[in-house]
Amino acid sequence: MNGKNELLEAYKQTTYQVAGHGKRDIQVLKEVLNEVDGQQESDLYGTGKIIEDFQDKIAAYLGKEATVFFPSGTMAQQIALRIWCDKKGLQKVAYHPLCHLEIHEEDGLKELHHIEPVLLADKNTVIQYEDVRNMKEEIACLLLELPQREIGGQLPEYETLESISEYCREKGIKLHLDGARLFEILPYYKKSAAEVCSLFDSVYVSFYKGIGGLAGAILAGDEDFVKESKLWKRRHGGDLISLYPYIISADYYFDQRVHKMQKYHEKAVELAGLFNQCDAVSTKPLEPVSNMFHVHVDVAKEKLESILIGMYQALGIGLTGNIKEIKDNVCCFEISIGDQYETIQKEDVRNVFQMLDEKMMELKNTVEPNTHS
Amino acid sequence: MNGKNELLEAYKQTTYQVAGHGKRDIQVLKEVLNEVDGQQESDLYGTGKIIEDFQDKIAAYLGKEATVFFPSGTMAQQIALRIWCDKKGLQKVAYHPLCHLEIHEEDGLKELHHIEPVLLADKNTVIQYEDVRNMKEEIACLLLELPQREIGGQLPEYETLESISEYCREKGIKLHLDGARLFEILPYYKKSAAEVCSLFDSVYVSFYKGIGGLAGAILAGDEDFVKESKLWKRRHGGDLISLYPYIISADYYFDQRVHKMQKYHEKAVELAGLFNQCDAVSTKPLEPVSNMFHVHVDVAKEKLESILIGMYQALGIGLTGNIKEIKDNVCCFEISIGDQYETIQKEDVRNVFQMLDEKMMELKNTVEPNTHS
Repeated sequence: MNGKNELLEAYKQTTYQVAGHGKRDIQVLKEVLNEVDGQQESDLYGTGKIIEDFQDKIAAYLGKEATVFFPSGTMAQQIALRIWCDKKGLQKVAYHPLCHLEIHEEDGLKELHHIEPVLLADKNTVIQYEDVRNMKEEIACLLLELPQREIGGQLPEYETLESISEYCREKGIKLHLDGARLFEILPYYKKSAAEVCSLFDSVYVSFYKGIGGLAGAILAGDEDFVKESKLWKRRHGGDLISLYPYIISADYYFDQRVHKMQKYHEKAVELAGLFNQCDAVSTKPLEPVSNMFHVHVDVAKEKLESILIGMYQALGIGLTGNIKEIKDNVCCFEISIGDQYETIQKEDVRNVFQMLDEKMMELKNTVEPNTHS
Repeated sequence: MNGKNELLEAYKQTTYQVAGHGKRDIQVLKEVLNEVDGQQESDLYGTGKIIEDFQDKIAAYLGKEATVFFPSGTMAQQIALRIWCDKKGLQKVAYHPLCHLEIHEEDGLKELHHIEPVLLADKNTVIQYEDVRNMKEEIACLLLELPQREIGGQLPEYETLESISEYCREKGIKLHLDGARLFEILPYYKKSAAEVCSLFDSVYVSFYKGIGGLAGAILAGDEDFVKESKLWKRRHGGDLISLYPYIISADYYFDQRVHKMQKYHEKAVELAGLFNQCDAVSTKPLEPVSNMFHVHVDVAKEKLESILIGMYQALGIGLTGNIKEIKDNVCCFEISIGDQYETIQKEDVRNVFQMLDEKMMELKNTVEPNTHS
């Protein structure tokens, strides 16, 4: 039995899903193209109205001098760090142990750019001011990811960011924002994007998380930084003759969803509350600070998969398609609230959590006698 | 006056263009999406039916064990060379002085991969067997671009390729094909793609030249090579969550045009003949060996621009939107035949070349007295 695939298949068969904006199918692009004039010219290797207008729009939104559209955040962020390292003549940066560059990019930063990372803070907590101040190594750039995705989307206090920013400016350390989910945290901080970004020298944002576009990223900073990042974009093979499928979808869904982040956050708080009422289930953070959180369940991965498959088939509502084992008898999955959650009837949601709680209780009652036998 | 932009603007206003498949506008993607089921699932970080099916299809076409779809050829080729260099433990390759990696990629190969290139052959000729055999440096990989685009799309004899391939295999040098225009040369060589590719260890093909897709490339080789190239694709930031806009358009236009390459070649030969009948005009190669050639004109760039703008406005037929200065009083432009050429009436084409010849003669008659005054 391939448990993971069975769960994913069962999840795909559900009528409703609590997370996300809906299926990642070609309709997502078709919907955009229906609204776009076919006579509009393609961008051409980073030039043309279609790419320049969007770059300007996001520059204004982020309060930065300039931006450049990238096919991926992986490319954008490696390049940002490379530029800051070259500028200082020091190939060393600092970031969280669970930073995207550290765990999801096959060591591109090291293999392509020969940049050495210093890992800051315990992996289960966010980077605090003290972590930065106590750092012994000299670095060219500090990367902060807001929210810290791999630990459920946690955030430091806003004052912490201000202190870190001030410290870095004093010490000549460039501060880079991994803002893959920047839009999603603004309601919690009660700040504009420009206010948050003013603390950072360079900023990356993504258009396929909360925004729900196809793919693509923006890297923002001052004019010189952006000019140099375009050279590196070409070196990386990211300066495609046409990037417009990503640009028009980013633009379309940005307009459609960027103002909904407050609602996504509220719904995440509501849903996390329901999870936390279930036996052996808790969320991280306990109260979400964005549209995302992780659900930790004190049960073996295979057991939870089997329970969820049964629930999906009984109720037609999917919670996740992908569970990760944390350790023996503890597993976890991620929830990011999007447009889907509000399509589900309150009563149906209640039924889901009643059943989940019952199943977890049953499990406890069947497991415990065995452990004492 | 911005001559280049004026020419491009006048070119865009013409009713017919002798080169290309038509305007690079969003309609190119809309046409594809009209034929595709919206319920089809997106690819997901290099996995899923939509990407795997296309990779398999092109692997079969190229006669290679496996392939991987890339957002760009720049990325695909740097990675191919890196893999071969790492395998041999020697960061040195050889290619033509006008290789794409040498002149169009902002030194990505050197800046990201620290690979040193050896430049083979005079820049105005293709690489010959003797150039390879007489090379003094030890290299990990030799890259051949077929046809050599920057010199009008020239080709070596097929026997030369066979000799080079045999030599490289004997000497333990990997042979990589820059096949950006591979489909386009098959009619001239009278070979299948698989026959040509069998001479090479790795092959890159593009889907937005003769095929006319949006962007995107395939890198092909044996299973191990392709497996490793996927790691590098992630490191480069090319492993996007969704690449399907490029894949579905590559697939659609591949089916529509790959069998038309013979016709494009024949029309290129016809059109080059018409250029060569004009005073002060000659093509390189004199007789095209693919769908492309360069037109060299013995006149100053600004003069030719002014002549062409007048012709475009008078006849409504565009030859080029972009002229390059070679040296004083010599300039050149590129023609790649696609679907557009056959939409123009023969008589209209004749009128274009009659006028071009007249204008060039006039110019000679007005210029020469001045030079003697």
